[in-house]
Amino acid sequence: MQEILIQNLNKRIKMDPHKNLMTQLMEHQIFIDHPCNGKGTCRKCRVRIVKGDVTTLTETEKQHLSSGELAEGIRLACLIYPLTEMTVETLQKEAACQVLTQGALPEFEYHPSIEKKKIQLQRPSLENQTSMEESLLKAAKAQSVDWELLHPMPPYQKMLTTVCRYGHCYQLEEGDTADQLYGIAVDIGTTTIAASLVNIRTGAELGVTSMINPQHCYGSDVLTRITYQIENPETAVQAMQKTLVGKLEEAMIDLCQTLQINPAHVYEMTVAANTTMLHTLLGISAESIGISPYAPAFITSKDLKAAAIGFQKMPAMNIYCLPSVSAYIGADIVAGVFSCQLQQRKETRLLIDIGTNGEMVLSHEGKLSACSCAAGPALEGMNISNGMRAAKGAIEDIEIDRSEIKLKVIENAEPVGLCGSGILAATKELLRSGMVKKNGAFIKKTELEEDHPLYQRLHINGKKREFLIAEGNQPIYITQSDIRQVQLAKGALLSGFYALLDQAGITIDQLDEIIVAGQFGAHLSADHLVETGILPRETKEKISYAGNTSKTGAYMALMAVDARKTMENLAQEIQYKELSTHPDYEKLFRDSLEFPKLED
Amino acid sequence: MQEILIQNLNKRIKMDPHKNLMTQLMEHQIFIDHPCNGKGTCRKCRVRIVKGDVTTLTETEKQHLSSGELAEGIRLACLIYPLTEMTVETLQKEAACQVLTQGALPEFEYHPSIEKKKIQLQRPSLENQTSMEESLLKAAKAQSVDWELLHPMPPYQKMLTTVCRYGHCYQLEEGDTADQLYGIAVDIGTTTIAASLVNIRTGAELGVTSMINPQHCYGSDVLTRITYQIENPETAVQAMQKTLVGKLEEAMIDLCQTLQINPAHVYEMTVAANTTMLHTLLGISAESIGISPYAPAFITSKDLKAAAIGFQKMPAMNIYCLPSVSAYIGADIVAGVFSCQLQQRKETRLLIDIGTNGEMVLSHEGKLSACSCAAGPALEGMNISNGMRAAKGAIEDIEIDRSEIKLKVIENAEPVGLCGSGILAATKELLRSGMVKKNGAFIKKTELEEDHPLYQRLHINGKKREFLIAEGNQPIYITQSDIRQVQLAKGALLSGFYALLDQAGITIDQLDEIIVAGQFGAHLSADHLVETGILPRETKEKISYAGNTSKTGAYMALMAVDARKTMENLAQEIQYKELSTHPDYEKLFRDSLEFPKLED
Repeated sequence: MQEILIQNLNKRIKMDPHKNLMTQLMEHQIFIDHPCNGKGTCRKCRVRIVKGDVTTLTETEKQHLSSGELAEGIRLACLIYPLTEMTVETLQKEAACQVLTQGALPEFEYHPSIEKKKIQLQRPSLENQTSMEESLLKAAKAQSVDWELLHPMPPYQKMLTTVCRYGHCYQLEEGDTADQLYGIAVDIGTTTIAASLVNIRTGAELGVTSMINPQHCYGSDVLTRITYQIENPETAVQAMQKTLVGKLEEAMIDLCQTLQINPAHVYEMTVAANTTMLHTLLGISAESIGISPYAPAFITSKDLKAAAIGFQKMPAMNIYCLPSVSAYIGADIVAGVFSCQLQQRKETRLLIDIGTNGEMVLSHEGKLSACSCAAGPALEGMNISNGMRAAKGAIEDIEIDRSEIKLKVIENAEPVGLCGSGILAATKELLRSGMVKKNGAFIKKTELEEDHPLYQRLHINGKKREFLIAEGNQPIYITQSDIRQVQLAKGALLSGFYALLDQAGITIDQLDEIIVAGQFGAHLSADHLVETGILPRETKEKISYAGNTSKTGAYMALMAVDARKTMENLAQEIQYKELSTHPDYEKLFRDSLEFPKLED
Repeated sequence: MQEILIQNLNKRIKMDPHKNLMTQLMEHQIFIDHPCNGKGTCRKCRVRIVKGDVTTLTETEKQHLSSGELAEGIRLACLIYPLTEMTVETLQKEAACQVLTQGALPEFEYHPSIEKKKIQLQRPSLENQTSMEESLLKAAKAQSVDWELLHPMPPYQKMLTTVCRYGHCYQLEEGDTADQLYGIAVDIGTTTIAASLVNIRTGAELGVTSMINPQHCYGSDVLTRITYQIENPETAVQAMQKTLVGKLEEAMIDLCQTLQINPAHVYEMTVAANTTMLHTLLGISAESIGISPYAPAFITSKDLKAAAIGFQKMPAMNIYCLPSVSAYIGADIVAGVFSCQLQQRKETRLLIDIGTNGEMVLSHEGKLSACSCAAGPALEGMNISNGMRAAKGAIEDIEIDRSEIKLKVIENAEPVGLCGSGILAATKELLRSGMVKKNGAFIKKTELEEDHPLYQRLHINGKKREFLIAEGNQPIYITQSDIRQVQLAKGALLSGFYALLDQAGITIDQLDEIIVAGQFGAHLSADHLVETGILPRETKEKISYAGNTSKTGAYMALMAVDARKTMENLAQEIQYKELSTHPDYEKLFRDSLEFPKLED
C-alpha cells in the first residue's frame, strides 16, 4: 500500500492517484478550509511537497502562487494528484485539526463514560456466599451496582452484558451485546439541530442528521421564544420542551432505523447548545434570560436520565449537557473554545460564532474573555424578504459584473431565495456597485443614469427601494429593509469585536487569528466578512474556519470524560462581560453601523 | 441547682431527692440494666458512693451486698435516694452506655446527612449576572443543586428554606421552616417493627411506635415468607413490599399527627433490619436467602428516594438502609455491633441477638466473627400453644413454689397467654421442679406421687403431656411440643455459641462479656438464659443487656454520616461462617439439646 505522510501531523494516509490531495486529506479527517470549493483561487489549501511526485503545475496555480512559494515546493492541494508515495506539509493554521462532519477536532484519547462488558455470573457456594450484587460488581468491574438490577434476580451461568456509566452498573442485557454501544452528540442551535450517531466503542460517526429546530413555530429567535414563555407562563415551557424532545427523539429513532441500531443500545446523548436551548430542553423557564439583568436559571453542566425530560424510546439513555458561561455565552461556545483548544495556545486568538446571536471569545495571555451581540437572524437568511435556509434553490453567492448578475445556487437549481451567505454576498456586491451607500441606504433612482447597467433592477415598492436579484417565475428581490437587517447585524458584531479588544487592551495588530465557528459562519467567506464590514479589512488574512465546533465539543464529551471536566473548568474561566456595561458602547455601535468603502 | 457527678462517665445530672438514684440515672440516658425491676435483688445496679449522703442502708441491701462491698461504700442504686450533692461511680460494665428507648447508645457527635437553611435570594444585576442555580448554591452552602428545583423558578427576596442531603440541595420550601427537620430511625424485625421519630436538629427522640410486622400474614418466620415468595414468584415480593411499606407509612403518618409534625418535613428514614426484611423492603426477591448456599441478592447499604419503593405521603423522604454481612447476619446485627462498639474494646466480647434467628458476633483480638442459628420463634412467644407477644395479659415470669404457681402478668391483668420470657421462665421452673427431665420430656404421671403438689397440674391430652400453668376461664397450658420448641431453640443457640468460640480458638474463661441485644433478649433474664441452658452456667455473671441496638444503630446513622461509613466498613470486617460448614456441627447441636441439671 502506497502512503502519504503528512509530516507536520505525523500521520500516514493511504495514497490514491485518482483523487486530488485535498479530497484525500479530508477523507482522513484532516480538515482543510477551502472557501473557493476547490477552484484553486482561495489559496487556503496550500501544501509543501517535501518528497515524492505530483501532477504538473496548473495555470491556476501559476496565477495564485508566488515564484517564492513555487520555489519552496508549495502547491494547492485541491489541484494536485499524487503520483508516488510522498511526504507533504499542510500550511493552514488549523491544519492540525481533524474533521467530524464540519467541526475541527483536536487529537484526544477516548475515555467514554459508558462501558459495556460481557459477563457470566458464577453460582455461589456455602464456602463463598457472594451476594448477587457483589458478583455483578466484580464481573462488571464496577464501583457500584444499581439495586433495581436485582429485581428480578439476574440468572447465573448465562451470558449477560453489563452497562456501566462512570463506573456505576445501571443496566443488564441478555446475551452478548457488548459491541452494541452507541451514543449521540447533538448541537441544538436556535435555528437548526445537528446530531451524530456515534459508535462509542470505536469513536466512529455512523450517521449524521440535521433538522430545523421545531421550536421555530414559537419564534425564529431566542427572544421571541422567551417572550412566548413570558406570555404563556403555564404552558409554554412544557410545550416547547415536548416539541424539542419529540422531534429530537423522532430523528434519532429514524437514524437508528437507517443504521439498523436498536434504540435500547443508545446509552448517552451529549448536548451542546446555547443557554436558552438548554433551559428549554430541561423544561426550565428561560424568562430571566430575556429580561435585564439576563441572569439564567443555570449554567453548570447537567447529568440526567433521558426519561426525566420525556424521552420514551431510548430507555437506557442518559444525557450530559455541556456547561455554559452566561445567558448568552452558552455551552455551544464553550464547546467551540474547547474543540479549537483556544485556551492552550500562546497566540492571541478570537473565536467568533456568527448566528442569530454573535458570540466572541478572546484568548489573550492565558485569559479568556467573551461577549455576545444580538446580530439578529439576517445572516442566517431569516427575517429577509426572500430569505431562506441553505437548501436546494438558495442563492449562496452573487457576483455583479456590470449588467450581468452571476448567481451560485445550491444544487444548481432554479433560484428560490437567498440564504445567509447569499444575503451577505448581495450586500457586498450592492456596495461595490454603488447601489447601496456607506450609510446603508439604496441609491436614489434619480441619482442613477438611465443607461446605468443596473438601472432597470432598482425598483420602488411603495416608498421603499428594492433591487431585483433574479428574474423568472419567482423574482427575487433584496429590499432596503433587508440591507438594514444586515447592517444591524454587522454593527452588532463589529462593535462587539472592538469592545472585546478594547477591554483586553489590545489592538487588531496583536490578533494572531480569528476563528469563525458555527454552521453558518462556515458559509460566510473571509472576503464577504471584511467587505461588508462585519470584521475590519485588516483581519482578512487572519480569518480561518473551524466548522460546527459545538457538535464537535459534544462529540468529544461523548467520547471522553476528561473533556467534560475540562469544559466545566473552561466555562468557569471565561470572563463574560455584558456589552451594555461597556463605556461608550452606544457610540461604538453607531460607528460600527457604517459600511466600508469598497473599490469597484 | 444540686447535682450528682457520675465520676466514671464524667457526667453531671440534676439531683432530685424524691426519686431513687437509678430512676434519675435512667432519666438522663445512663442505662443501667436491672432485671429485678428495682426490687434490689439482682445486684446489677451497684454503685459506689464517692462523696455525699444517701438514705440509710435497707434490709434488702444488707442481704445482697457483702460486708466488703459495704465497706467500700457500694450500694444499690434502685434503693437509695440522694440527700445532698454527691459523686458516684457506676459499676455495671455497660454503664458507659446511654439509652434510646431500649438501646445502648455510645456518645457520638451529631453530623446528620440532612441540613436545612433559611435563605433569601438576592436579585442579580448587570454587573453580577449570577444564575439562579449559583445563588441557591451559595445561599444554601451546598455543593450541588437539583436542577428540578429551577422549575418553577424560585422567587427572589422572599424567605425560603433549603434542604440539603450530603451537601446536595434537593428541596426548597417557602418561608422559614429550618426548625422543622425530622427523621425516622426504624428497626424492622421479622416479628415486630420499632420506629422513632427524631428531631434531627437536636437529636431528641420525639416519639416511638412499634407494631407487629404486617408480613406476619405471609408466615411468622423468615423461611415461611421466603417459601411464599418461591411459590408465588409473580406477585409475592411486590405484595409483601406493599404491605410493609403501607403499614410503616401509616404508622409514621399517625406518629406525625400525634406530634403535630408535617410529614413533608420528614427527610430521612434510616433502616436497620435483617437481610430478608431489607430485601422485601426494596422489593427484591429473598428467594436465594432461603435456599442453599444462602447467597443474598445484596448486602451493601442502600440510599434511595422513599418514593422509589412506594412511600407516597412523605414526599421529601430519603431512605438509608444499613449494610448487612450475609444472608443471616443482617444490618440489625451490624447496628448492634456498632452501637455496642464491640470492635473498639480490647476485651473479648460476644454480642448475641435472640430472635427467630439467633445471631452472634464475637470480638476477639481485633477480629470480628459471626454465626447465625435458626432458633425458631418460640422464644418470642410464637409457635407455642398458648403463646402470645409481650402485651397486656401475657405471663412474663413464673415461679413454682411447691403447689403454688406465682405469675407475673403484664399490666397485672388476667393471664391470657405466655410471652417469650414467660415460656422460658416456665421451662426453667418445670426443669427445676422435676416436671421436665434433662432430655426435655415431661415426667410420666406414673412416675409422680399422687400427693406431689404438682400432680394435679400434669395432664394428658391425647398422647401428649401438658402442664396447667393457670386456671380460670381461659386455662393456660404448656405442652410437650412447647418444651420441644424451646429445646430446639436452646440447642441451636448453644451450639452456635460453642462453634463460634471453637472457631476463634477460645474458651468460655477468656470471654469477658456477653451482650444480649435485641428487643426480645432484653426480657430474657440472665438466670433464665443459663438455667434453661441457652448459655452455659459459667457465663451468668458475664451477661449484660444492651436493648434494641438495631434501632440504636439506625438512630446513629440518622444523626451521623460518619456512623454510616463506619458501619459500612464494619459490615465488611465481620467474618461470617455458615454453621453447617463447621466440623462436627451435627454432633455439637445434638449435645447442646440437653437441658442443664438444676438444683431445686
